[in-house]
Amino acid sequence: MEPAFEKFSDGLVPVVVQDFKSKDVLMMAYVSKEAYEKTVETGLATYWSRSRKEIWVKGLTSGNTQNIKEIRIDCDRDTLLYVVEQIGGAACHEGYKSCFFRKLEESDYVVEGERVFDPKKVYNK
Amino acid sequence: MEPAFEKFSDGLVPVVVQDFKSKDVLMMAYVSKEAYEKTVETGLATYWSRSRKEIWVKGLTSGNTQNIKEIRIDCDRDTLLYVVEQIGGAACHEGYKSCFFRKLEESDYVVEGERVFDPKKVYNK
Repeated sequence: MEPAFEKFSDGLVPVVVQDFKSKDVLMMAYVSKEAYEKTVETGLATYWSRSRKEIWVKGLTSGNTQNIKEIRIDCDRDTLLYVVEQIGGAACHEGYKSCFFRKLEESDYVVEGERVFDPKKVYNK
Repeated sequence: MEPAFEKFSDGLVPVVVQDFKSKDVLMMAYVSKEAYEKTVETGLATYWSRSRKEIWVKGLTSGNTQNIKEIRIDCDRDTLLYVVEQIGGAACHEGYKSCFFRKLEESDYVVEGERVFDPKKVYNK
């Protein structure tokens, strides 16, 4: 059984990323076949960056890599779930633990999440 | 702030669905703008069925609806997170709690998940 890369015109399968301790959903990303195989081989979460159009070992710049604890696949083989140990405690490039740090309240989204690092310092922007 | 429907050629934004109690990731689905607005309005998880090409109130057939507890959006506005109360205890049409009931072991995926109902009985297939 393999992820259904062939189902997607761009060959990219979405990956939900979950923290193995807190069970928080950290982020969503995409894998090419190569990125998926590299993840399985190395135990380090590796994705396809759609903006940079390249293989992306998560955390190489920030140091916040993700060690794979479990890989799961859904019933239709068209979504993966990486259960990870998030090094540095933050998955989001904006410095938050989770990329889902905004929550719908009444009619708009408000920030409700813990900021772990200052992205200006980490990425030298 | 709104989900970035305009970023997707098919206008569909992916939604990660998480159980509010167990924090298990239950499934992944997609919303059109209409499905999203219906979800916010009714408090019942509503998606766009890519196979049937129609608005899909999850659980109308099986009875396993999803009551919205929280809606979150990621930093790029291109993924949603529905935190839900899963009625009937099973999100997967194959009768499992979660669609991610297969886990990678050595070189293949094996079933590791709890089956709550028999899909043959529920869907009369």
